[in-house]
Amino acid sequence: MNTKVLDAFTQEYKQLLESELRTLVEKLKAPPIIKEAMQYSLKAGGKRIRPLLLFATINALGKDPKDGLLAAAAIEMIHTYSLIHDDLPSMDNDDFRRGMPTNHKVFGEAIAILAGDALLTFSFEVIGQIPNEIASSEIKLQLVIEMAKAAGSEGMVGGQVADMEGEEKTLTIEELEYIHIHKTGKLLKYSVIAGALLGGANPSQLENLSAFAHHLGLAFQIQDDILDVEGTPEVLGKPVGSDSSNLKSTYPQLLSMDGAKDALQTQLAQSKQYLEKTGLNINLLNEIADLIASRDH
Amino acid sequence: MNTKVLDAFTQEYKQLLESELRTLVEKLKAPPIIKEAMQYSLKAGGKRIRPLLLFATINALGKDPKDGLLAAAAIEMIHTYSLIHDDLPSMDNDDFRRGMPTNHKVFGEAIAILAGDALLTFSFEVIGQIPNEIASSEIKLQLVIEMAKAAGSEGMVGGQVADMEGEEKTLTIEELEYIHIHKTGKLLKYSVIAGALLGGANPSQLENLSAFAHHLGLAFQIQDDILDVEGTPEVLGKPVGSDSSNLKSTYPQLLSMDGAKDALQTQLAQSKQYLEKTGLNINLLNEIADLIASRDH
Repeated sequence: MNTKVLDAFTQEYKQLLESELRTLVEKLKAPPIIKEAMQYSLKAGGKRIRPLLLFATINALGKDPKDGLLAAAAIEMIHTYSLIHDDLPSMDNDDFRRGMPTNHKVFGEAIAILAGDALLTFSFEVIGQIPNEIASSEIKLQLVIEMAKAAGSEGMVGGQVADMEGEEKTLTIEELEYIHIHKTGKLLKYSVIAGALLGGANPSQLENLSAFAHHLGLAFQIQDDILDVEGTPEVLGKPVGSDSSNLKSTYPQLLSMDGAKDALQTQLAQSKQYLEKTGLNINLLNEIADLIASRDH
Repeated sequence: MNTKVLDAFTQEYKQLLESELRTLVEKLKAPPIIKEAMQYSLKAGGKRIRPLLLFATINALGKDPKDGLLAAAAIEMIHTYSLIHDDLPSMDNDDFRRGMPTNHKVFGEAIAILAGDALLTFSFEVIGQIPNEIASSEIKLQLVIEMAKAAGSEGMVGGQVADMEGEEKTLTIEELEYIHIHKTGKLLKYSVIAGALLGGANPSQLENLSAFAHHLGLAFQIQDDILDVEGTPEVLGKPVGSDSSNLKSTYPQLLSMDGAKDALQTQLAQSKQYLEKTGLNINLLNEIADLIASRDH
């Protein structure tokens, strides 16, 4: 596997995305403080795994990944808003994220809530602004609807609610999967679906790409739980063992560490099977999948 | 003026709207607690002035107001989410709204924040779900974009930020207008614009209807400030004088009470001039404008 190709791809599109995000917010005619709060958390971004999946999906379909810039920006805005709101004192009450003070620690709770609200709202406008040469109104509307489903009470917000309700009690593996499929899985899956829609996937390709993303999302979360036990705090950017000290149910806890590692490999293999079925140029997506399953942070 | 016609219209469409809101949330496949929190605040709705403006605008254009049901539901979801978030302890810290405990007093802060997020997100999906027989994909996309602009950092959220920043200092009349145009005016204006787009207004009608709504939004807010001084607490459902005890700048304070009443009449007259120019069947809209300017709560 040639990770140099993925490295170059990642570097190029991460840069394009970050410049797009900066410009989009800069242009807003809004009180400076809210723009500053929006930029602060957008800039603090990490691996940009969702945008990367979107770009690589368009690439797999033989189209120009740049066609996905606005959709990628919208997805990253939604991801960022969810982190800002999750970090709030009444939610996870986190003071730091990726080594930086969280949004409400810098701007106060009220502005943090509003910055999240503004990012969420703006994401839909950004989808609407995709040029007609790139996507028809029908496709853009489908992107809006699917994004709302992935982010709302049937998706990410629902997962966050279930996660909060599941705290401090032992969950079944089905309950744990419900949380992960919704809290992180749906938006990750949407990133691939958006790429598929923008890249002109046919219905069978769309279905296989969705299934790929579904299993990849689970692999992502299992690896997250494994890292919480086996990771290095310096590399993770947060203390290890935070899940068990929070009494949160995790895969290693419910399945044992060996069982969790088996489950990770099973999900990864399943995701790759679906990818194979698309008959597309899947090199980059395959590499991203490997990266997700073997990452150390 | 025949207010019986407006009363009957209001009653009919308020009922249809409330049933639509209930059904839309009922159908969501989401954790029960978040649906309950969404329903709680949607049900607590007041005058439903924004949906009413939307329905009456479609009516003025000679189309079936029922075509606006989903758009009206979306607007009311956005209005409701904004109230839930505004009431939070870190924002206005209100325990009661319209005589009922606020969302976070019943469900806790975390669920209140998430219920707001879920309503905002769902509103865009609901616009996307307007049947093609009612609106083309192009119109629906325009509805999405305009709604995001009206609700986001360039609209309502921006107004809320400016409002918070303006607390405890004396504002100029321009600063006060900025707050009101953004915090309440933009979504009120959007309600009319959405009705115009759904009712098939031509560009000149759209422009005049927008200007009507702009001035009506200001009239609405001036009356709000007047009521805060002259209203009856029992009718208002909140104590009078809360603005001056909060040291908030208001129209009566900046313009004197007589000046504020003059300004109200000026805005109302301007709004009606634009309405006249549309050449449409404006009876209902005219009555709604009078109602807004003379309401006692």
